[in-house]
Amino acid sequence: MKKNDGGIDKKDKIGLTDGSVVEASSLTIDELKRKTEKENVVKTITKRSDDYSQWYQDVIANADLAEHSVVRGCMVIKPYGYAIWEKIVAIVDSMLKGMGVKNAYFPIFIPESFLKREAEHVKGFSPELAVVTHGGGKELEEPLVVRPTSETIIYESFSRWIRSYRDLPFVINQWANVVRWEMRPRLFLRTSEFLWQEGHSAHASLREAEEYALKILNEVYARFAQDYLAMPVYTGQKSEGEKFAGAFRTFCIEALMQDGKSLQAGTSHNLSDNFSKSFDVNFLDQDGQRKNVFQTSWGVSTRLIGGLIMTHSDDKGLVLPPKIAPVQVVIIPIIKVQDGAVISAAKALAKQLVGLSVEIDLRDYLRPGEKYYEWEKKGVPVRIEIGPKDLEKNAVVLVRRDTGAKESCSIDQVKKRVEEILQDMQSSLFAAALKRRDESNKFADSWQEFEHALRQGGYVFAHWCGDEGCESDIKQKTKAVSRFMPFDAKEEQGDRHCINCGKKTAYKKRWAFALAY
Amino acid sequence: MKKNDGGIDKKDKIGLTDGSVVEASSLTIDELKRKTEKENVVKTITKRSDDYSQWYQDVIANADLAEHSVVRGCMVIKPYGYAIWEKIVAIVDSMLKGMGVKNAYFPIFIPESFLKREAEHVKGFSPELAVVTHGGGKELEEPLVVRPTSETIIYESFSRWIRSYRDLPFVINQWANVVRWEMRPRLFLRTSEFLWQEGHSAHASLREAEEYALKILNEVYARFAQDYLAMPVYTGQKSEGEKFAGAFRTFCIEALMQDGKSLQAGTSHNLSDNFSKSFDVNFLDQDGQRKNVFQTSWGVSTRLIGGLIMTHSDDKGLVLPPKIAPVQVVIIPIIKVQDGAVISAAKALAKQLVGLSVEIDLRDYLRPGEKYYEWEKKGVPVRIEIGPKDLEKNAVVLVRRDTGAKESCSIDQVKKRVEEILQDMQSSLFAAALKRRDESNKFADSWQEFEHALRQGGYVFAHWCGDEGCESDIKQKTKAVSRFMPFDAKEEQGDRHCINCGKKTAYKKRWAFALAY
Repeated sequence: MKKNDGGIDKKDKIGLTDGSVVEASSLTIDELKRKTEKENVVKTITKRSDDYSQWYQDVIANADLAEHSVVRGCMVIKPYGYAIWEKIVAIVDSMLKGMGVKNAYFPIFIPESFLKREAEHVKGFSPELAVVTHGGGKELEEPLVVRPTSETIIYESFSRWIRSYRDLPFVINQWANVVRWEMRPRLFLRTSEFLWQEGHSAHASLREAEEYALKILNEVYARFAQDYLAMPVYTGQKSEGEKFAGAFRTFCIEALMQDGKSLQAGTSHNLSDNFSKSFDVNFLDQDGQRKNVFQTSWGVSTRLIGGLIMTHSDDKGLVLPPKIAPVQVVIIPIIKVQDGAVISAAKALAKQLVGLSVEIDLRDYLRPGEKYYEWEKKGVPVRIEIGPKDLEKNAVVLVRRDTGAKESCSIDQVKKRVEEILQDMQSSLFAAALKRRDESNKFADSWQEFEHALRQGGYVFAHWCGDEGCESDIKQKTKAVSRFMPFDAKEEQGDRHCINCGKKTAYKKRWAFALAY
Repeated sequence: MKKNDGGIDKKDKIGLTDGSVVEASSLTIDELKRKTEKENVVKTITKRSDDYSQWYQDVIANADLAEHSVVRGCMVIKPYGYAIWEKIVAIVDSMLKGMGVKNAYFPIFIPESFLKREAEHVKGFSPELAVVTHGGGKELEEPLVVRPTSETIIYESFSRWIRSYRDLPFVINQWANVVRWEMRPRLFLRTSEFLWQEGHSAHASLREAEEYALKILNEVYARFAQDYLAMPVYTGQKSEGEKFAGAFRTFCIEALMQDGKSLQAGTSHNLSDNFSKSFDVNFLDQDGQRKNVFQTSWGVSTRLIGGLIMTHSDDKGLVLPPKIAPVQVVIIPIIKVQDGAVISAAKALAKQLVGLSVEIDLRDYLRPGEKYYEWEKKGVPVRIEIGPKDLEKNAVVLVRRDTGAKESCSIDQVKKRVEEILQDMQSSLFAAALKRRDESNKFADSWQEFEHALRQGGYVFAHWCGDEGCESDIKQKTKAVSRFMPFDAKEEQGDRHCINCGKKTAYKKRWAFALAY
């Protein structure tokens, strides 16, 4: 697709919401607004088995996480959804800082000519660009693109900042919004604007760049996904066709959703010297020679929230692993009128739970049952019910979100018991997701097996030639694409033939194929 | 100025850097890049008395805080500058959360038609807009503006989110980037893109909106500026001509810089029902009536860093109040070759200083003197020098950045002494700035006094009619504008006449006039 060619295709279809596609030209902004309004209305939650895609939207709407904006393809992240993002940011940021990474901020606008300097890069991003043509009341001499990613604008700075081998490795991270035009937006998974971090490093050698890209993938992204989001991930390498536009190699973390589709949850790229050649990023080495640096870039985004939702949530709504839940415990006083003793006991309990994030729901215009239902849909890990009868026994009722298990607990034991439940819930959510994924894994050694396995969902491991044309062919026939070559797969000996074209393949490991988000 | 009229004025002057203005049409991007490069080069620091504006740029360049981007009017916030912003964000965010404010995120793009709904609002912002006309390779049916502020897009959401009196007050904050096209950018003070928080609230009555706008101003902005940035501020109300486009009333915190100019450091607006009428933000009140809400919005930005620099820094470079310094203490081992004992002692010292933010400068290719100079320019409050001779005496040398005072301190007393110095430095920086401001305050009762006082710098307090035309006239004659009517000024009785037009004024308090950033 040619970028910014000014052609208006009146038949351009826009998908304002997940499910439906409308003709862009047929709707005014006010009509779009009413449509958005209608579709953002909270409804009951569709069952996963009935319509997974609708279930996903319903979970988000009912937990009050986000909504479609009237602005095409963009989302509004509502306070509860944003609180999850704030937890993600805090943890990932502290992991990165622990590795010595420093944050900085670069302009949101990139001159069009910068993007064009790396041929593959501009080819990959052109179809998705938002272009600013007017500023301050005048047409710009050179259009500016709203950053879809910041390699080009950041490396222009690197070219001035990096002088000597002493400056290497040079690592910068940025928390920012980016824009990639989306025709078929889905909240958190694919939106025209999203929030992310993008890290960028420069190294003296290709080997060091490779090691650093892998270190970020393994020690930050995979660890964060598994230890905090309780989301099991494969780590592996992307095919030539699926790698980042401009990268030498792309590594990824990839997670299986409950519907058997794969989600790319984070990527780390070895850029080799592809960009340093275009942007003249060089250094004076110890041997007195001026050399181009080797670079990496890596990012995770608000897409992680989509992965989080689709990994753990159930037909009752959102389920959040305790380590990422903005509210870990909700206390609900069971009172018909304002009962001073119960409210005091609830407040004392909240104080006892110091170190946890606790909310007391004191709204007097909702019945306890309505509150249970609301917090359940919001995925709060533990609910504490406390009423006059419990108080008489010096006890409360604890309800665990994922299993629904209820238990009575004496008030002086609450902190200990809640912490046990949270810990158990964190690990059992991970174990359940891992089991689900591993049980759905399949190996295929013939096209028939391959097609059959793909239809059942989950990852299908097969030998493949790696050819881009062959991959397109597979995609056309099955809708599936190669997701990654897993790092931990075992090497196979003997003749290995491509599952599709039948050619001999040089890869000793099987590739993972799946339908994907 | 008409927005987005497509007219290209070849004579349009662009100010890429603070000082110079060049013809936009005469430079290619590569030439702009070279120009930027040249001007971003670190130089010695000009004296304040020689050229205050150049001194400001030199302090920023030498402390490595930020630089001009090749993208017109935008800045790159470098890691050390961004670390200051991160501290600002952390503190302001926790103050806001302490008041129950929740964060959310709204799209960066706003349909042009939204902006037009509030007549004053669009009039105020039109000349500064960046406009996206193409997305995803096609021309958009309706242009999107890059948010200059988010009242319109946020209140469209409010119109769907707020239903009943129970939802009020409804308060949301957003940390985001915004774009306001700048012809004469100055790092941190005026850039085409900047970072900020923008808070938005909805209330049941005008009185409650007024109280909330003032509460944010007094309890968050003024307190943060004074207690953390050590920057004394006046709180007051803006004139009709200087208020926010679309506001009923604008309140501000305003600080005096060392050159006698005033800096608007934060604003809080009572929007009344101006926007709720345009965006249909209403609620069902307890009396069963549907009513429009009354709103506020308020923001502080990366501009605060400019204020911080110009309040405390000196001819040697940046001076940072300890509470906002990313590095509070730097330890410099004085060694010719790597000396294990000294390095161990330095590391032990860093451990002793737990709770403070400490850096040890172990670079072996710089002499201690070079390191002193570098950290001095970065404004680190306390430098600790530790060498073999100090170690023999079980002592170190402490050097305080603002006064330059040096003292020997026995190693076991370092933590206590450093904390004392930091505390004293925080309060004495504030006291010095307050003294400077208050001593430069002047009252004027005649035009001659007024003009004379303005030339000397500082705030000039005078009676004024409040008329916009009269204000323009004053500006034309003196370059000064009204800054605020201070809340704490005393009311005066008897006849009061405008300092410029001589008309009787109804205001009992004097207005503060000053040259301004």
